Amino acid sequence: MVVTYRVIYGDTDCGGVMYYGNYLRLFEIGRTELLRARGLTYREIEEKEGLILPVVEVHVRYKAPARYDDLLEIETRVTEVAPHRVRFEYEIRRGAEILARGYTVHAPVNRKGRLTRFPEDLRRRLSALVQS
Amino acid sequence: MVVTYRVIYGDTDCGGVMYYGNYLRLFEIGRTELLRARGLTYREIEEKEGLILPVVEVHVRYKAPARYDDLLEIETRVTEVAPHRVRFEYEIRRGAEILARGYTVHAPVNRKGRLTRFPEDLRRRLSALVQS
Amino acid sequence: MVVTYRVIYGDTDCGGVMYYGNYLRLFEIGRTELLRARGLTYREIEEKEGLILPVVEVHVRYKAPARYDDLLEIETRVTEVAPHRVRFEYEIRRGAEILARGYTVHAPVNRKGRLTRFPEDLRRRLSALVQS
Amino acid sequence: MVVTYRVIYGDTDCGGVMYYGNYLRLFEIGRTELLRARGLTYREIEEKEGLILPVVEVHVRYKAPARYDDLLEIETRVTEVAPHRVRFEYEIRRGAEILARGYTVHAPVNRKGRLTRFPEDLRRRLSALVQS
Repeated sequence: MVVTYRVIYGDTDCGGVMYYGNYLRLFEIGRTELLRARGLTYREIEEKEGLILPVVEVHVRYKAPARYDDLLEIETRVTEVAPHRVRFEYEIRRGAEILARGYTVHAPVNRKGRLTRFPEDLRRRLSALVQS
Repeated sequence: MVVTYRVIYGDTDCGGVMYYGNYLRLFEIGRTELLRARGLTYREIEEKEGLILPVVEVHVRYKAPARYDDLLEIETRVTEVAPHRVRFEYEIRRGAEILARGYTVHAPVNRKGRLTRFPEDLRRRLSALVQS
Repeated sequence: MVVTYRVIYGDTDCGGVMYYGNYLRLFEIGRTELLRARGLTYREIEEKEGLILPVVEVHVRYKAPARYDDLLEIETRVTEVAPHRVRFEYEIRRGAEILARGYTVHAPVNRKGRLTRFPEDLRRRLSALVQS
Repeated sequence: MVVTYRVIYGDTDCGGVMYYGNYLRLFEIGRTELLRARGLTYREIEEKEGLILPVVEVHVRYKAPARYDDLLEIETRVTEVAPHRVRFEYEIRRGAEILARGYTVHAPVNRKGRLTRFPEDLRRRLSALVQS
């Protein structure tokens, strides 16, 4: 799943490039749109399942800077689904050039704020996203 | 009430100056610390009074740019308290130089999301902050 | 000129709504895309004309909150072009509902950081955007 | 080196906690103030040495959420200095509770945008920060 993103002034810093923290916004956009494209939205997961999916781990490797007005591609994949976690991987590109790669790991938490397992149906739907 | 703030990379943009939207973060810091210095916190207002104070209007006039690593002063005053609104005014300075001036207007909203009046006690405490 | 924007977690705050400062990001997106649609980009204005267009004034009136995952419309117009300034007006909507209205005023600044006049050609192109 | 940071509305998201990307702002504050406390500032490194220190890698492990108005502690250490890289480690705490741990790796880049070695003097000063 690939979505595009146009870099604005508000994403950049005085080094002339996208601020390193803002790549985590791109990752959020990537995973949200990947889920939406498969008929799953965070909002629904929250409301129907009573689950939230907080990030428990993030890693980014920055290879080349994104700059103002660049039209970026965000490619997102689900690479692991386990009872207590799901892992997304991201690649940020400008044309053929890879600017950054990263991953996030999320753990399902219920309304009481406790770690829980994915409900069977949701886990199956997430697992269907894992690419071989 | 004056608080200081150190500009970080994450506040700036590729124009080499603080991003215009980030002054609204400074305003938030200013009004929060002004209230705290008088024994009032947003958190308490929310929890005890069941009120939130969303911003209904903001205005900023930008006079000179703030830059990376600048140590800014945020001066905040309460300039008006009415049954349905409170107004804060802000001045952002670097040393003697005024970089920006602005104001925000907030309206009390209750737990049901409806506009309401300030409770008498809270209104009195806010009014005590208005400088002549 | 209308562009759409999907609200992400990173735009919202713990009040459950879009953070008031982030509307200024939406305004930036609105004016950038308005210019681009007319064949003008900030990047070109900077590089060809040696001009930047810093914001000297901003005003926002918040009418109703934008929430997570909302698909917003950002409508932008140029409402005034003068030798030393240009004014943009913005309306943020969710469907038919107006969430916020605002304006920004920008002044052309040259490479030496001094206020200047718009070059004749650029002024004409901006003026062509003013809607009657 | 420990600095404190007060969480504002603008740092949080509609999940009621600090947005995961904003921890990278805390890391920036941590390493900047660590360097400053030792008489080194980014601004000077940029201006005197002609170097910037872009982040090439970041990792965060989120253990418990930071919330609005929390007074956090950011502890920062330099854990590795090599000819082409420096590594900072961070711990974000609320009182005795650890909320997040992470690291960043930075590589020195010269004015032409090319990877370079640390100048001998700067490398010595950074190495002096490594804690045994």
